[in-house]
Amino acid sequence: MVVVNYFHYFRFPVTFILLSDYLANNIMTSKPTIPKGTRDFSTAEMLKREYIFENIKQVFRLYSFQPIETPAMENLSTLLGKYGEEGDKLLFRILNSGDFLSSLNDDDLLKREYGKLSSRICEKGLRYDLTVPFARYVVQHRDEIVFPFKRYQMQPVWRADRPQKGRYREFFQCDVDVIGSDSLLNEYELIKIIDEIFKKLGISTVIKINNRKVLAGIAEYIGEADRIIDITVAIDKIDKIGIGSVNSELSSKGLPDKAISGLQPFLELNGSTSEKLAKLGKLLSESETGMKGITELGTLFGYIENTSLKCDVELDLTLARGLNYYTGAIIEVKSKDVPIGSICGGGRYDNLTGVFGMEGVSGVGISFGADRIYDVMNQLNLFDDLKGSATEVLIANFGEIETDYALKILDQLHGLNIKSELYPDPAKLKKQFSYADAKKIPFIIIAGEDEILKNSVTIKTMSTGEQKNLPLDEFSTFFLSDTPKSPNGNI
Amino acid sequence: MVVVNYFHYFRFPVTFILLSDYLANNIMTSKPTIPKGTRDFSTAEMLKREYIFENIKQVFRLYSFQPIETPAMENLSTLLGKYGEEGDKLLFRILNSGDFLSSLNDDDLLKREYGKLSSRICEKGLRYDLTVPFARYVVQHRDEIVFPFKRYQMQPVWRADRPQKGRYREFFQCDVDVIGSDSLLNEYELIKIIDEIFKKLGISTVIKINNRKVLAGIAEYIGEADRIIDITVAIDKIDKIGIGSVNSELSSKGLPDKAISGLQPFLELNGSTSEKLAKLGKLLSESETGMKGITELGTLFGYIENTSLKCDVELDLTLARGLNYYTGAIIEVKSKDVPIGSICGGGRYDNLTGVFGMEGVSGVGISFGADRIYDVMNQLNLFDDLKGSATEVLIANFGEIETDYALKILDQLHGLNIKSELYPDPAKLKKQFSYADAKKIPFIIIAGEDEILKNSVTIKTMSTGEQKNLPLDEFSTFFLSDTPKSPNGNI
Repeated sequence: MVVVNYFHYFRFPVTFILLSDYLANNIMTSKPTIPKGTRDFSTAEMLKREYIFENIKQVFRLYSFQPIETPAMENLSTLLGKYGEEGDKLLFRILNSGDFLSSLNDDDLLKREYGKLSSRICEKGLRYDLTVPFARYVVQHRDEIVFPFKRYQMQPVWRADRPQKGRYREFFQCDVDVIGSDSLLNEYELIKIIDEIFKKLGISTVIKINNRKVLAGIAEYIGEADRIIDITVAIDKIDKIGIGSVNSELSSKGLPDKAISGLQPFLELNGSTSEKLAKLGKLLSESETGMKGITELGTLFGYIENTSLKCDVELDLTLARGLNYYTGAIIEVKSKDVPIGSICGGGRYDNLTGVFGMEGVSGVGISFGADRIYDVMNQLNLFDDLKGSATEVLIANFGEIETDYALKILDQLHGLNIKSELYPDPAKLKKQFSYADAKKIPFIIIAGEDEILKNSVTIKTMSTGEQKNLPLDEFSTFFLSDTPKSPNGNI
Repeated sequence: MVVVNYFHYFRFPVTFILLSDYLANNIMTSKPTIPKGTRDFSTAEMLKREYIFENIKQVFRLYSFQPIETPAMENLSTLLGKYGEEGDKLLFRILNSGDFLSSLNDDDLLKREYGKLSSRICEKGLRYDLTVPFARYVVQHRDEIVFPFKRYQMQPVWRADRPQKGRYREFFQCDVDVIGSDSLLNEYELIKIIDEIFKKLGISTVIKINNRKVLAGIAEYIGEADRIIDITVAIDKIDKIGIGSVNSELSSKGLPDKAISGLQPFLELNGSTSEKLAKLGKLLSESETGMKGITELGTLFGYIENTSLKCDVELDLTLARGLNYYTGAIIEVKSKDVPIGSICGGGRYDNLTGVFGMEGVSGVGISFGADRIYDVMNQLNLFDDLKGSATEVLIANFGEIETDYALKILDQLHGLNIKSELYPDPAKLKKQFSYADAKKIPFIIIAGEDEILKNSVTIKTMSTGEQKNLPLDEFSTFFLSDTPKSPNGNI
């Protein structure tokens, strides 16, 4: 096979192979598939997804966050150990190019310690989330960055999880963070962003807020500072199993009765946010950390109440996610109508970049789960008014003679920024109409012999079947007044 | 370390680890890096890149192409053998999860045939281009697709190439294809799209066009049908080394003198496109394939001349790229001002999906190389009028007492869709001003004690230093008239 390295960049291989060789080598008979847990996105799905991304992006920008992007591949040294043992197992590793075995002797191979081996034959892994790459980015580019750094990042991440409904191996995250400022105005701004984005998308939500310092205070208060996880995990189950069972679970986990009884007032906490905070204040008055958390919550809820922000915000002591990062506020958002878990979440972390050797940079951020948001909007039919097709006009193709005339019409439509196309082949009109139908194109322009003679065009409205004949130099006014506004327009 | 699988989707690990453990395990002192050949994109770079992507996308949509996306990972069975032997070596392979050695016995390992082994321990690879995944997509979804299928796809691809200036291991492709129609109107439409996109971006280009069938005809004509590659590669060098050297190279490659002399009229071809086509017609009158190619070129150039399209289009017989796919038109675009190779290219392929068992589907498509386009625009300073920052207004922070007032102002600005932010900390004004300066924010709003007393705001224009004091309920009019339009606005 003749092979000449010739052309790099584009759609086509960097090598020459005769078409015959090429095909001979590559005939495949069974229908091709994609790796499990991954997805193709059809045009219809893409239009919906872009509608979500575009709305999220617009709000991020309005609040003057700016985009960055990081490579899909990171060095494994950057990723390993950041997500717990479980996370390390879920990293997709990229095999070193060339002779990846060269650094291994026979004994290494025969030991078959695949865990260890994988790190010897793979230097790179796929991004597991956007947070660790962001921390790496901030440390690596600390000298170019203007702090406080308000960045957003919308990219896919990859996890070798067992695929299941609503859980994919490739999915999108939309992260927004402020790093280099510990002002609670940042937390407030993120709450506003959450509210604005979900209002735009038409999803009604509950925004749950907690504070890591309060959780620490509670653990201190009952004298079990190091049992904070058991405690929050148990608390988290109250709604499902009730206080009684929570208590027995805690004692089965070896929590002393004294601690359990100490915990009761927190489990029974109720009333308005300010009432809850007041009660917490009394209970935790001895814990410096706890009191600091209460003050932070007070300030944040203060901003929310004193301003125009009208949304369903709730203090929720059972919120404990991301405990390994968070040091202050914890935020989680749920859809009121679709029980699908969190559709957005995040919080304050005081030492994210510490793992890369840059200490004491406080940040706060949240992440929107595009895939879950998509599922919620689908279930609520919130995409209904989103056109299945961006195309507004199809010009029927009558053949060579009529083509120049049709191309003139197409030019006029494009000149007016009207999404339109000329059917490429002079197929039977029936076929061309069903094409328009399948693509939900609202208007067809007919410009055959008669129209050309009268220097006119006929416009057919697909929904009504109604036809209008207009002079060539005026027909476009029809669309300027009548074109349906499609959400795709602004994507 | 306590590990509880708790929460999947968001920014944070699916596991709980105590912050202390977490940090203890992960302190890194040396500055982190990214894999060679990959890039981080800063906010300034992202705004430029998005400007390019957005312009390309708008034109694709205007011509009613619609987006699809495919997974970053494809099965290796889909990718292998599609890019030549060279290409197979350049695929990034993903190590199977879990015990990737289980299917291998000791002998397999000790043979150390890393090429074979890699296929046993890796089932998946990263996308190498968008064309093969697209072919796979069309075959896999043939039943849902409405043909002719006009799709665009803008995603990164990965190649384990030796990194060098302007060549990356992760780069973006923007592909647009029509599949399921062999009308030359599709080729014409792609030429229009090329012209429109580069006019929008301000890059003046030459669009070079050739036809694979003409090349085949020439090879036939000189009786060397199977030497077509040597011939085109040689022809390609004429500008650099001259006809003489081309001829000696050809004979050194063992091309008979008869064939070489037969080739001369093609090498010396000149005149206008129609003159060239006429001469070709005479020379190739015996070759059915060749004449078909000439007719196709004639029709395509006919469309170009009969319509409003004003661009620099050129028949170039030396154009031979992507020979292993192309069966008709071949298109390549070069910048007139920056010698960087092709910034866009593509062509007609009659059997792209054949390798996946779906025969006889003709398509034509082109690919825009975002990274090279970016380099060209940078060199020509075409981004100059693109704001470095999307933020239009910074509200200075004077502290707790003034915060509520500042938040009211911020609400008003956001309500008017003006990108704005409140500096999060009550830092020294000097610091806040230099922040605005570094982020190129054109306006600062000062709302301190005096302004609050007079229920007013002071607006400082950074470029002039000029200050204006306006009543709270009127100040926004200032921006509605004065806000500089920033290209970011429509991204």
